[in-house]
Amino acid sequence: MIREAFYGAQRFEQFLANVGCARSLLTERLATLVEHGVLRREPYHEPGQRKRHEYLLTAKGHDLYVVMLALTEWGDRWEAGPEGGPLVTRHRDCDALVHVELRCAHDHRIREPEETEIQPRPDLVDRTVTK
Amino acid sequence: MIREAFYGAQRFEQFLANVGCARSLLTERLATLVEHGVLRREPYHEPGQRKRHEYLLTAKGHDLYVVMLALTEWGDRWEAGPEGGPLVTRHRDCDALVHVELRCAHDHRIREPEETEIQPRPDLVDRTVTK
Repeated sequence: MIREAFYGAQRFEQFLANVGCARSLLTERLATLVEHGVLRREPYHEPGQRKRHEYLLTAKGHDLYVVMLALTEWGDRWEAGPEGGPLVTRHRDCDALVHVELRCAHDHRIREPEETEIQPRPDLVDRTVTK
Repeated sequence: MIREAFYGAQRFEQFLANVGCARSLLTERLATLVEHGVLRREPYHEPGQRKRHEYLLTAKGHDLYVVMLALTEWGDRWEAGPEGGPLVTRHRDCDALVHVELRCAHDHRIREPEETEIQPRPDLVDRTVTK
């Protein structure tokens, strides 16, 4: 759903066409995303039709872009088959591909997962040092 | 569940303690992840106990590391409150933080989402050029 929003879907029927799930499930999922502040529901009115709503990414929703691209790159590697994924992400200015990378804040080099470690935040740890 | 696997959970009771959902739901979710090749189920045997299984990340599962970190960074920004998230990810060698970044393959600079565009892969598009 979030991916479809990034690809440009805004209206219920657009999500429905792209996702292809049941209307009731779509309604429920959109409501959940609105509730969590990822999408916001805005009224729109086309001439001669009743008022409808469209679903727009909030700032919090837009900030999932890198997550979505990371998941897309993973899907392209593992789920798309030998022909790869159908989409690419490009830098508008130079047309080169953009990729999600894990970089060290010290030397800004790419780091492999094995080179990293997840730890508790230092200020949350009791660091009684005996000298 | 995947996050817990990255944090070191392998056994059913470890996932249960960390996730805190119903046993039946946990069983179902672990089976789904095994079915999709993200976790593999391996037997282990402790002295005096019956054979049990543990759940280990496959290569496909390990490859979700960047996705998981991207989602964690997002959660720390939007869900963790003013005090931030409880964990940090560090580069083992130099102890600096590592971050998930969107970089251009041409100049390797960080790119904002607004500077990028998702497009169909060129070879999948009919590019009939009239000169």
